[in-house]
Amino acid sequence: MTGSLYEEVQHFYGRQMRHLDEGEVTEWAATFTEDGVFAANARPHPQEGRGAIEQGAREAAERLAAAGVQHRHWLGMLEVDEQPDGTVLARTYALIVATPKGGSAAVHLSCSCEDRLVRVAGELKVRHRQVYRDDLPA
Amino acid sequence: MTGSLYEEVQHFYGRQMRHLDEGEVTEWAATFTEDGVFAANARPHPQEGRGAIEQGAREAAERLAAAGVQHRHWLGMLEVDEQPDGTVLARTYALIVATPKGGSAAVHLSCSCEDRLVRVAGELKVRHRQVYRDDLPA
Amino acid sequence: MTGSLYEEVQHFYGRQMRHLDEGEVTEWAATFTEDGVFAANARPHPQEGRGAIEQGAREAAERLAAAGVQHRHWLGMLEVDEQPDGTVLARTYALIVATPKGGSAAVHLSCSCEDRLVRVAGELKVRHRQVYRDDLPA
Repeated sequence: MTGSLYEEVQHFYGRQMRHLDEGEVTEWAATFTEDGVFAANARPHPQEGRGAIEQGAREAAERLAAAGVQHRHWLGMLEVDEQPDGTVLARTYALIVATPKGGSAAVHLSCSCEDRLVRVAGELKVRHRQVYRDDLPA
Repeated sequence: MTGSLYEEVQHFYGRQMRHLDEGEVTEWAATFTEDGVFAANARPHPQEGRGAIEQGAREAAERLAAAGVQHRHWLGMLEVDEQPDGTVLARTYALIVATPKGGSAAVHLSCSCEDRLVRVAGELKVRHRQVYRDDLPA
Repeated sequence: MTGSLYEEVQHFYGRQMRHLDEGEVTEWAATFTEDGVFAANARPHPQEGRGAIEQGAREAAERLAAAGVQHRHWLGMLEVDEQPDGTVLARTYALIVATPKGGSAAVHLSCSCEDRLVRVAGELKVRHRQVYRDDLPA
């Protein structure tokens, strides 16, 4: 049987964050719409468009590789709400776990995340993501 | 399509714990039955009834706000078992991540949780919750 | 209604890891096929067969009990892919949280996990598990 929207979003996040953590930055960017926006309270300006999202991920991946650190992005405590306009509001908690090669794993950041998801050619994509780091002012 | 009971419980926990962590203590208390009980091996007496559960959450929320700390309650590794009497036994692991404003996120507590869920007017509610902190005697 | 394969795998992992963390080593071993293999980049040789898997879990459980430490294995960020040969490839992130009695919970290890699942008499079993600790060379 085919799963529900709730499950589809869970599965989407599994694929999406694995792309990010494995440094597959083109595949990562492709999980956003062409005009997708990635905003965060940790950044003065949002990343706007797939190109900027891919570039931001590439720089982060290079920084982590140079430092010998593996990140794992966990999304959980999912709430999914279909909106009247057909988009999907998906809210999660996000936990980033960091492990240096030869070192100890530790929680790096705790955040909440609000996504506006849309369907493009049948597949879910992020049109707008807003991440709030818990340590920074909202 | 409508999801399964397993998914419904996942979704319920997403809503429930977000209410708690956002300080929405009335909405939090409303996820328990009127006569709901919240027991924990960290407390000498359980919270009995929605009023006590709301009051407990309010005091905790005020304490955290005063300290400038954000908690995130993660529930995971869910097992769901429908009981012969129509109630639902839901078992989870619970992880509390704490982040002080301007500081570093860290694991605060690791627990296991056993809920007895019932349906009230179609909606899942917790009738009995038992939390066991891993650092304390069971 | 019956859930999907994705949900069945989530539920399976909830049961499986609870068995491990509760020291139910026979039940843990029974979640692998008779000829199941548990490989990890932390070990020079894989555990091969249910007997070896049970023995490895028993030794770990005894070590933890002697040290007074509770482990909680979280699996998340699940991706499920049915293979042409009827097996199921399930990929997860794994987080091990450790709590000493009377002490503080902390992240112990961060890993990724690749399982080859098969159905035996209707139930999912692990035929091959490969765990990669993030702190060690892959």
